[in-house]
Amino acid sequence: MKNAIVGQSGGPTSVINSSLAGVYESALERGAPIVYGMLNGIKGFLEKRVVDLSLYFKNSLDIESLKRTPSSFLGSCRYKLPDPDDINNKNLYDFIFDYLNELNVGYFFYIGGNDSMDSIAKLSNYGKKINSDIKFIGVPKTIDNDLVKTDHTPGYGSAAKYIAVTMKEIIRDATVYGTKYVTIVEIMGRNAGWLTAAASLAKGVDNEGVDMICLPEIPFTCEGFIEKVKKLQAKKNSIVIAVSEGVKLPDGRYVCELNDDGHEEDAFGHKALTGTARYLANLVRKNIDTKTRSIELSILQRCAGHLTSRVDITEAYQVGGAAVKAAFEGNTGKFVAIKRISNAPYQATTTLVDINEVANYEKKIPLEWITEDHMQMKHEFIEYALPLIQAELTPIFVAGRPWHIKL
Amino acid sequence: MKNAIVGQSGGPTSVINSSLAGVYESALERGAPIVYGMLNGIKGFLEKRVVDLSLYFKNSLDIESLKRTPSSFLGSCRYKLPDPDDINNKNLYDFIFDYLNELNVGYFFYIGGNDSMDSIAKLSNYGKKINSDIKFIGVPKTIDNDLVKTDHTPGYGSAAKYIAVTMKEIIRDATVYGTKYVTIVEIMGRNAGWLTAAASLAKGVDNEGVDMICLPEIPFTCEGFIEKVKKLQAKKNSIVIAVSEGVKLPDGRYVCELNDDGHEEDAFGHKALTGTARYLANLVRKNIDTKTRSIELSILQRCAGHLTSRVDITEAYQVGGAAVKAAFEGNTGKFVAIKRISNAPYQATTTLVDINEVANYEKKIPLEWITEDHMQMKHEFIEYALPLIQAELTPIFVAGRPWHIKL
Repeated sequence: MKNAIVGQSGGPTSVINSSLAGVYESALERGAPIVYGMLNGIKGFLEKRVVDLSLYFKNSLDIESLKRTPSSFLGSCRYKLPDPDDINNKNLYDFIFDYLNELNVGYFFYIGGNDSMDSIAKLSNYGKKINSDIKFIGVPKTIDNDLVKTDHTPGYGSAAKYIAVTMKEIIRDATVYGTKYVTIVEIMGRNAGWLTAAASLAKGVDNEGVDMICLPEIPFTCEGFIEKVKKLQAKKNSIVIAVSEGVKLPDGRYVCELNDDGHEEDAFGHKALTGTARYLANLVRKNIDTKTRSIELSILQRCAGHLTSRVDITEAYQVGGAAVKAAFEGNTGKFVAIKRISNAPYQATTTLVDINEVANYEKKIPLEWITEDHMQMKHEFIEYALPLIQAELTPIFVAGRPWHIKL
Repeated sequence: MKNAIVGQSGGPTSVINSSLAGVYESALERGAPIVYGMLNGIKGFLEKRVVDLSLYFKNSLDIESLKRTPSSFLGSCRYKLPDPDDINNKNLYDFIFDYLNELNVGYFFYIGGNDSMDSIAKLSNYGKKINSDIKFIGVPKTIDNDLVKTDHTPGYGSAAKYIAVTMKEIIRDATVYGTKYVTIVEIMGRNAGWLTAAASLAKGVDNEGVDMICLPEIPFTCEGFIEKVKKLQAKKNSIVIAVSEGVKLPDGRYVCELNDDGHEEDAFGHKALTGTARYLANLVRKNIDTKTRSIELSILQRCAGHLTSRVDITEAYQVGGAAVKAAFEGNTGKFVAIKRISNAPYQATTTLVDINEVANYEKKIPLEWITEDHMQMKHEFIEYALPLIQAELTPIFVAGRPWHIKL
């Protein structure tokens, strides 16, 4: 029997460790003698930084702690494998396959988003070329929900729930004085507005909901924005707006680029798209006689393990298990997708998709799910997203704080 | 039997409605025919905007919802009553007492912080002067924990818990890539560092804890800060720092004033102390070869009703009840303080304090609770704060989101 290896890649989520738990338990159950974890994804693997996961997960409480610990237990990376067809990269790929054989690995799992699926595509394609019998399967993960060929991605439901809940709370807070106030909340999403759209889930009989939603799918003009805010505030004092960090001007620049101070960068030197809400709050204040506040939900929307969706965390575990099943049944170069069977009651299952149909594509919000005035989500979005934020998986609170497991 | 009236004032918290519930249920139990609520505090009262609370709280589920709903159910204000000894203000005070008599109110409760206690002091002093038999009692509330003569204030425990939990999550997220990274988290607190100090509660066997804490109690220099960050990052890559929005330079300016872009204002035109973390992250990037990220916890730290301390929310209810007991037993011009009996096991009770000893004073962190290098909290703080964040009061989740009650 061959061993299994698993890695985590890309931005962390609240539930990516639940997928790790799914891969780990399922691989052991199917008879893998050792389940290795690569530290910091494929980047760490290239430095031979791998661990035997049984050293860390000794009992079922460890597994439960793992499911409830946000961020990537194994560490992560943002590393794109080079072109396997380029002869200059042959040494790299030879190293990978030699090292996998040295570890007696027969099953390779990579939990991640777009770039990670690209890695799985390249490894499985190269593996086929050299007649390797190692199976490569991609496990979906991204709060951005921008992977194609899957109804949604694990990680999205919990981020959407966090956004819906905190928007409800922000709206309660913002109305407290009854004064003229414009609150602008910045939400992640570079090109796709799935997360920002989740702000629409704040609305209900016990909440007024957000007054405007600005998505990257819709070109943004500052003049149009100010006009809309003016009209909204003519009707009520406290206006709460959800804006995507990725909103762009008609000329293609991000709104946050209009800030003239320094730009922060993420861990890889990509320009961080922060400051959109701050810029717009300043703009409102210059144009309208109102107080303003800008709020960035920042990384809490992806790492708030204290507030996860049970549907999401369960599906994250399931796609891990389904990936193992697929590999042990002989599949390679596949991606585990989620297929929705029904909305009410919500039912979903997993299917396999060719990895080449997924890597490097990006799924945006259908424009017909956005109202004609571009300010709200239509019921189609609510029906799509609401099942994904249902139910909770309470943290294991120890002395008042959620218990985590770490390397 | 006389009626009771209650108002909420100042910045909202996650548990101020639990105090409202305590006042409401206790006043009814003691026989008050009507419990009125003033909308937007004393400001709304001056406009005769009062409601009969029984119209909103019809059963015990409403009360449970109220306890779990963040922000001020009745709305709030920031309004300081004018000097009652100034003859020019006689009409205002006459109006207040006439209207209270018109409503047949014998008991007046005001839930709030420093400014609210000032209002209670003025009203009770004026009441004594005119031989009114209306009883005025202050109910403490502030996330800032800066009221004197009380061990702590309701609202602080839940905010501190939110900060401890989210710092744990931010630290997990920030270490994921293993790269050089400085994360600076900005926490509320204009003059007192109680909230920022709560970041120290992230530390435990399952968490590395924050690497540095910057409190307003300690004068701040940019040079000293950069030197400390350099030393920290020489030892490990990912550095997480908690900084108070109120840190000040030796010349008295707030660090956030060094930002050259526009300043946001709160609902009353007070300059908002935002941008401290952003300024410092820019400064780090200019001086050290590292990536950075700045995060503002913003209003979530005071309105995150989805993550409250059960100790805090219970005490918030208790101080409401104790205020009613005090008033019905004939006290006026008093403030309900919390007195700690023991740390382990944590036990506390309520006492009455003369309101004039509380209003307009401010409690800061004892300097001897801060380590000599000014970077961490000593065990004295941990022993003080840890009991206040214990246990949870789970929201009533309906369709994936906490249920709230609103006017």
